[in-house]
Amino acid sequence: MAFTIGLDYGTNSVRTLIVETTTGKEVGTCVYEYETGQAGIILDEKDHNVARQNPTDYVKGIEVTIKGAIADAKGKDSSFDPAKIIGIGIDTTGSTPLPIDKEGTPLAMLDEFKDNPNANVWLWKDHTGHAEAAEITELAAKEHPEYLAKCGGTYSSEWFFSKVLHCLRVDPKVYDAAYTWIEHADYMTALLTGTAGPDKIKRCRCAAGHKAMFNDDWGGYPAKEFLSKLDKKLGRLSDTLGKKTYAIDTAAGNLTTEWAEKLGIPAGIAVAMGAFDAHLGGVGSGIKEGTLVKIIGTSTCDMVVRDKKADLTDVPGICGIVDSSILPGCWGLEAGQSAVGDIFNWFVNYIQPGGKDAGSHEALTKKAAKLKPGQSGLLALDWNNGNRTILVDQRLTGLLLGQTLHTKPEEIYRALIEATAFGALTIINRFEEYGVKIKEVVNCGGISEKNALLMQIYADVTGREMKISRSAQTCALGSAIAAAVVAGKAAGGFDNCADAQKAMCGVKDTTFKPNPQNHKTYQKLYKLYKQLHDAFGINKETKIMANVMKDLLIIKEEANA
Amino acid sequence: MAFTIGLDYGTNSVRTLIVETTTGKEVGTCVYEYETGQAGIILDEKDHNVARQNPTDYVKGIEVTIKGAIADAKGKDSSFDPAKIIGIGIDTTGSTPLPIDKEGTPLAMLDEFKDNPNANVWLWKDHTGHAEAAEITELAAKEHPEYLAKCGGTYSSEWFFSKVLHCLRVDPKVYDAAYTWIEHADYMTALLTGTAGPDKIKRCRCAAGHKAMFNDDWGGYPAKEFLSKLDKKLGRLSDTLGKKTYAIDTAAGNLTTEWAEKLGIPAGIAVAMGAFDAHLGGVGSGIKEGTLVKIIGTSTCDMVVRDKKADLTDVPGICGIVDSSILPGCWGLEAGQSAVGDIFNWFVNYIQPGGKDAGSHEALTKKAAKLKPGQSGLLALDWNNGNRTILVDQRLTGLLLGQTLHTKPEEIYRALIEATAFGALTIINRFEEYGVKIKEVVNCGGISEKNALLMQIYADVTGREMKISRSAQTCALGSAIAAAVVAGKAAGGFDNCADAQKAMCGVKDTTFKPNPQNHKTYQKLYKLYKQLHDAFGINKETKIMANVMKDLLIIKEEANA
Repeated sequence: MAFTIGLDYGTNSVRTLIVETTTGKEVGTCVYEYETGQAGIILDEKDHNVARQNPTDYVKGIEVTIKGAIADAKGKDSSFDPAKIIGIGIDTTGSTPLPIDKEGTPLAMLDEFKDNPNANVWLWKDHTGHAEAAEITELAAKEHPEYLAKCGGTYSSEWFFSKVLHCLRVDPKVYDAAYTWIEHADYMTALLTGTAGPDKIKRCRCAAGHKAMFNDDWGGYPAKEFLSKLDKKLGRLSDTLGKKTYAIDTAAGNLTTEWAEKLGIPAGIAVAMGAFDAHLGGVGSGIKEGTLVKIIGTSTCDMVVRDKKADLTDVPGICGIVDSSILPGCWGLEAGQSAVGDIFNWFVNYIQPGGKDAGSHEALTKKAAKLKPGQSGLLALDWNNGNRTILVDQRLTGLLLGQTLHTKPEEIYRALIEATAFGALTIINRFEEYGVKIKEVVNCGGISEKNALLMQIYADVTGREMKISRSAQTCALGSAIAAAVVAGKAAGGFDNCADAQKAMCGVKDTTFKPNPQNHKTYQKLYKLYKQLHDAFGINKETKIMANVMKDLLIIKEEANA
Repeated sequence: MAFTIGLDYGTNSVRTLIVETTTGKEVGTCVYEYETGQAGIILDEKDHNVARQNPTDYVKGIEVTIKGAIADAKGKDSSFDPAKIIGIGIDTTGSTPLPIDKEGTPLAMLDEFKDNPNANVWLWKDHTGHAEAAEITELAAKEHPEYLAKCGGTYSSEWFFSKVLHCLRVDPKVYDAAYTWIEHADYMTALLTGTAGPDKIKRCRCAAGHKAMFNDDWGGYPAKEFLSKLDKKLGRLSDTLGKKTYAIDTAAGNLTTEWAEKLGIPAGIAVAMGAFDAHLGGVGSGIKEGTLVKIIGTSTCDMVVRDKKADLTDVPGICGIVDSSILPGCWGLEAGQSAVGDIFNWFVNYIQPGGKDAGSHEALTKKAAKLKPGQSGLLALDWNNGNRTILVDQRLTGLLLGQTLHTKPEEIYRALIEATAFGALTIINRFEEYGVKIKEVVNCGGISEKNALLMQIYADVTGREMKISRSAQTCALGSAIAAAVVAGKAAGGFDNCADAQKAMCGVKDTTFKPNPQNHKTYQKLYKLYKQLHDAFGINKETKIMANVMKDLLIIKEEANA
């Protein structure tokens, strides 16, 4: 009997999950809420684009949660023994880079920079680099369109080089003091394995491929000459990035004695290369060729893998297609909806302040469940936060149509759920139109576990069975799976991801099967959704309504100027 | 010094207003709430189309309110003396017909029929005749398209012949017992002047022209042969309708001694021909060539008159164009929006159950007033209850566009106000496109008095000054004006409507002038409103989105079947 640790760094907290490798049984867990800032995030009242974190919270979280999870496991399972832990896997948010010195110490931990937010970690949702993102997009479009082809045509302000370039521009002192910048996941693995120094750092494929334009086709990261054109100093960063990146079945190294002693687990055990939380959530949900894993929360992440031996043309509108970013040896395809739970939260928090009885998620869901498909006469678009996949356009907005003088809140609530289901179907259809067959859909994330109405509507709209991942902690489980693979079969782990997933993943007994009658009605409604989607969203030469939302945003910006 | 009485029959109550003729000063008033049914309306739990009234309430209301208004005037104004009352004018809802016997007695007042709702008054919003309306439309389209040309192409279930034909079909006993059917307004004038018998009844132009296809061009009411094709018995009704109808400057007759004694006012004074409340509201707001009068309540009635000597082509999408229906000697043009206040009520009552602080009209208006035009990024269509004018399509529904995850209720509330303003502008533009110049806009009705934000938005959207009628009771004032005209100058009244209006009408000192900057922004927004309006509303051969709302309604009907 062997155990692995999955260390799952979220936006507000870090969790350790200890998993038994042969069964996937989750024997212990512990969560540590970051202490700095608001819910772990350092904000700036004057600039809503700022979102930073304190790396000290990450480091403290290792010890607190691993020790806590060990205590939890000991209490629950007498067969558990920390000496039987054979590996550690790590997932984090991203792109969440931080500046480090040559020794691998975050600048934020140095006295000189301890009060400088620019020396902190730049959290994924920090948007201060929006001008730099536009600059990178413009230059890449001109000189290296291939860089953009794999990431939907636009380099985002959330991504690695936008953040680094912005720091260079606004705080050259921090930039100059940094030996390099490193993704949160890579910092954690380097720290635990003592590989933070020059020529030792291993960077993970997932972050590099999805957020830093890394691709073996052009020799790795963007060319030094390209980065230098953005800024000479950015070109110099190029020398520290290395030429290789690594998938989750590669060990970052072995746990240092120092950390082993601190944590009370064996020294020298393998630490797997990190990856983004969603991607390891895909792994923990049993992702494989033909399986779509949907992580449904405030937004969604929709993941598919495709064997590298299979044909794969670019799928238009799918933001990220990266070799081995999810499973080694497979293309990782990442799609997603910019808002799902966030739309329902908006409706409940902003539009329905009627309190528990009138306007809670529970009350609205209960009433909405009594409605039949089509019965309200309502139809909505799920674009309140733009459209991340297919249209790849943040300058799209919501739409609700069909309301009368009798339209009730629960009808709107249901229409919003249906809109997100239609959005989900549009992504599935796009994959299949480009030869990526979806044979199975596995859902995970809070909403999929909590909202049976939503899952049934998704089944009815898509005409597909909706399965729910067995684990409530698929990201941490995915990390534990990566740990089991790098530990290897001899140590009580596995030879490869597929074997590990077969043993450690599963779906719940309860699944949601489509109701044929409802599906028929939803096919009619989807036709109308698609008509609105294409008319308002697709800006062809023969554009129909595609100007409307954009013109409104221009007027809005003028009004707010 | 002379006074006239305006008797104003609304949907739930009747009001008497006593007005001094030379100044328009309102010296006394009294309201009587109908006693029968719910708020004066007899409903049928099993059939929501049913809306009837008890004529006894109307009769009782004469005495209660005229006596009450006299008492009120005596208390307030020592110069008032009921002996100085020189005439009575009457407005009612419509089409609101009732069956009467040869003596002019409503069948509902006979013992035989007193418990039969079909013998009652069929209130304007009774929709039981919807099948008959379709039947009439179909036959007219085939045999007499000219009948439909003046009423927007569709004969409504709310109108005279739909109701009469439905009664004939479902309750032949009532139909057979009736000598004829008469509009509410005509019943009141016949009652007060003792002219209810055969060959004595005078019918008003307003109701006949707008709701019963009366037009001098084809010799008055629809041909007997046409009505007979619908049903032989309906053809026989034709003989009782007469060939002439009368405008409000014609006396229906003189007040009978019996009623004079009962009311304590002079016998023999002139009683003016009645008209619909909205139309006399137009008169009471000083309507004249070039003035648009908007009565803004749950819906709107937009009225314009056009001198009969001027050129007037049909204005497409304007439902009613009737000779002398508002002012004698002028075409009366009636347009309107199917829902205005009703849309705001829907939002507050259904969507915003947050109570006084969060979701009242007052709270939302206060917050909405702080927003600048365009600032919310929202745009709405005002079609929650269909579109009465321009598109003439009840099968259109609401639309809201531009919402984000931060959209607030007051932003939606303001967008809904703006949508109704854009709808109002669309009507103004349509009039002007067809040569009917609008030089002045006078508003009346509850919302125009109470909601300064709405009036300012209307001014800013239309780029026109919004005036507010001085009287809070423009319908009753219009009736009092008609009374002053039929009383004549010699008696202390006037020779014609124009003179009477000049003396008795006015606008408030406070008007709403357009803010040029806001108007500029609203011009941009209106362009987008018009784009949505035409795309979703106009079903040309090159239709773009015009199927969407209708297909949704079909799916809705299937779901509810």
